[in-house]
Amino acid sequence: MAVYTEVSDDELRDFMAAYDLGHLLSCKGIAEGVENSNFLIVTDYSPFILTLYEKRVHEEDLPYFLGLMEHIADKGFTCPTPVRTREGEALRRLAGRPAAIVTFLTGMWPRRISQEHCTALGQALARFHAAGADFAMTRPNALSIGDWGPLFAKIDEEEADDVQHGLAAEIAAELAFLKANWPTDLPRGTIHADLFPDNVFFENNTLTGFIDFYFACTDWLAYDIAICLNAWCFEPDGSFVPVRGRALLQAYQSVRKLTEAELAALPILARGAALRFLLTRLYDWINHPPGAMVRKKDPLEYRRKLSFHQRVKNAGDYGLSL
Amino acid sequence: MAVYTEVSDDELRDFMAAYDLGHLLSCKGIAEGVENSNFLIVTDYSPFILTLYEKRVHEEDLPYFLGLMEHIADKGFTCPTPVRTREGEALRRLAGRPAAIVTFLTGMWPRRISQEHCTALGQALARFHAAGADFAMTRPNALSIGDWGPLFAKIDEEEADDVQHGLAAEIAAELAFLKANWPTDLPRGTIHADLFPDNVFFENNTLTGFIDFYFACTDWLAYDIAICLNAWCFEPDGSFVPVRGRALLQAYQSVRKLTEAELAALPILARGAALRFLLTRLYDWINHPPGAMVRKKDPLEYRRKLSFHQRVKNAGDYGLSL
Repeated sequence: MAVYTEVSDDELRDFMAAYDLGHLLSCKGIAEGVENSNFLIVTDYSPFILTLYEKRVHEEDLPYFLGLMEHIADKGFTCPTPVRTREGEALRRLAGRPAAIVTFLTGMWPRRISQEHCTALGQALARFHAAGADFAMTRPNALSIGDWGPLFAKIDEEEADDVQHGLAAEIAAELAFLKANWPTDLPRGTIHADLFPDNVFFENNTLTGFIDFYFACTDWLAYDIAICLNAWCFEPDGSFVPVRGRALLQAYQSVRKLTEAELAALPILARGAALRFLLTRLYDWINHPPGAMVRKKDPLEYRRKLSFHQRVKNAGDYGLSL
Repeated sequence: MAVYTEVSDDELRDFMAAYDLGHLLSCKGIAEGVENSNFLIVTDYSPFILTLYEKRVHEEDLPYFLGLMEHIADKGFTCPTPVRTREGEALRRLAGRPAAIVTFLTGMWPRRISQEHCTALGQALARFHAAGADFAMTRPNALSIGDWGPLFAKIDEEEADDVQHGLAAEIAAELAFLKANWPTDLPRGTIHADLFPDNVFFENNTLTGFIDFYFACTDWLAYDIAICLNAWCFEPDGSFVPVRGRALLQAYQSVRKLTEAELAALPILARGAALRFLLTRLYDWINHPPGAMVRKKDPLEYRRKLSFHQRVKNAGDYGLSL
């Protein structure tokens, strides 16, 4: 479950008193989300989401995340938007943790991905990139190529090989390849960096917005696309679905045309994104505390995706007509 | 977490189409509850609770539970009330499980119990018993004295002693004592049988209703009080709080006066209730599957409560002036 910190009714009542959000009717922990504790609170105005930021989110990054949500919402991109107290505060403390209330984004994340979802996602991602273009704050990507080596060094090779024979050597070889071939410069901006289906809401196949900006950072825009290719365009059996890849890329380009350099870099960015999630999942898999109430995500799903991208010759293999 | 069954957006949309509940805006798994999967769904009318009944609830009991909620709600006792489809169905199927939508009860359960909570609880419990008095359906208590022996037999004595040295012998002795001294007849009716603080909601110290009727059954009314004495009237350190016991019992009696036989039986009923929760917690503690995403409840909390009740001489020790 995704509630790590218990909030008492008394504490919550005191906390809510600082906002003009009407009378508190209910507060229930939400079973989704992995990093933070999330509660759905209902007042006589509306539902809201209350988030308590847990250990894995660095407190000093929170003004960036909350500022980004406010910025893109101001630009008309729908997302949960921080609610301020009467005194103007968005980031506060509750039950010993940094805490914020954000508006309630309607919709549900899609369990079965269709081509139409990928079209909507591609357009929305390009609009998100446009909305974030003049966001004044920056944040380095804490899980980019320079961080994968140190993360890999924290994983015991034998334990990695217990997950799959030969895995440690495969990762080492891929890391070396990526370091030697990683692009040197591409269009940069604010990226979401974790745009999995459970972070994109739809109502009757209409995309209502993005959630969970807690990996957002300043990086190459095309890296966000590479993450989406991994997260949205494979079947559960590991096979790539070209119509979804095409839908995603064409829809993105209907808003912002990719440069030649970006198109050429897509396969290697997709390899990098696959390795990034392979590494973090592998680390979590091996270091999963026995009492943790979070479902472990299969690292080998990303090994299979990586192996697809390793065979890709150019962006045409993702479904695009070059 | 309390979501064992995943519901896809497509399945949910089809399921919701049978109701007149407005347009579905959101559905989020709730991190509370242990037995079933609960979702908070939001439509443009209101929030509702969707419950998928999991293995531990017997499907044949569901008409009793849902019928009870409807019955007491009709009598004016606030509780989640089953919502019927346009065709009049309350109990349906979703994602391969029995499922029902109930109305959303506002309020939160109290994390820190006060005397005032116990007063409100006592009155509400007596009103609940009155509301259930003419409920036509009956259901035997599946966790009553006759069931404790067979449950204890399923617990390995050595494993029990690993939890606390001598525990198995203590339980055997208590079981023998209870069998020899259990009352033979007391006023009967519909009881909740699981009225822990997390099943009672309050808004600003006003009790808004009870939830979670999935242990409700036909049994002695005073046994419900005995469960509440255990669940509401002890400090976390294991000490009994007489002002809370008095508040609970006096408030209950302000609505329905306990008979002499009930008052005399309270200490042994409280011992029985303590043993019932000691046994089920101990069984769950020992048989906890490693992957289960539910916090284990400490069985020894109920051993400490049991040992208090063993020293009680009469209902006066619960704070009542006799």
